[in-house]
Amino acid sequence: MAGHGSSCGACKFLRRKCNSDCVFSPYFSYEQASSHFAAVHKIFGASNVSKHLLHLPLHQRSAAAITISYEALSRMCDPVYGCVAHVFALQQQSQITLEILYEKLISDVCFFGLRNQMYI
Amino acid sequence: MAGHGSSCGACKFLRRKCNSDCVFSPYFSYEQASSHFAAVHKIFGASNVSKHLLHLPLHQRSAAAITISYEALSRMCDPVYGCVAHVFALQQQSQITLEILYEKLISDVCFFGLRNQMYI
Repeated sequence: MAGHGSSCGACKFLRRKCNSDCVFSPYFSYEQASSHFAAVHKIFGASNVSKHLLHLPLHQRSAAAITISYEALSRMCDPVYGCVAHVFALQQQSQITLEILYEKLISDVCFFGLRNQMYI
Repeated sequence: MAGHGSSCGACKFLRRKCNSDCVFSPYFSYEQASSHFAAVHKIFGASNVSKHLLHLPLHQRSAAAITISYEALSRMCDPVYGCVAHVFALQQQSQITLEILYEKLISDVCFFGLRNQMYI
């Protein structure tokens, strides 16, 4: 149980009693019910996420709940690409930075090559 | 309908008749039933994905089906981080490349600054 006395964000959203063994309560606060858990339920389904978390050891559930929320919220913002849009954007950014670095190194090789020729 | 005569990968997996108006058939081939669609169903649930695709205009459904499959397959491979692991890896790679580029630029500024001082 978490949040306002008796219910976690998931149970508040699902309008059910929150028990002491609720799998969601450590990861979804009462205040996040209408934002995070609503997205998680709409995109993944509460039952699927519950099963998924229960299959994980306790120490890994927090990271799983956070990444599942991130994927769900991303999919709500961008229904076509979801968080894969972030993967694309980062790939592109990484590619651009690598190209700038590559050009910088090539221009250095040319500059120092020319400079060494002048001193020979 | 797609694939081996009468069924798409989703309907093959769900063991149901594949109709001409099946929302999955253009995006899940018969051969992908036990790989892609099994993951999609396990992680998102066929019903959620069906609703999601039906809410999108036709021309965006293919990209959505691909990115949903990508997220589902990533979550099967890495149940804790899913495709968010790729986001982390790309952020780290991008950060490292930026740091190398930054150090390269700083060393150039120092080199050319010193060189100009020698010529003054």
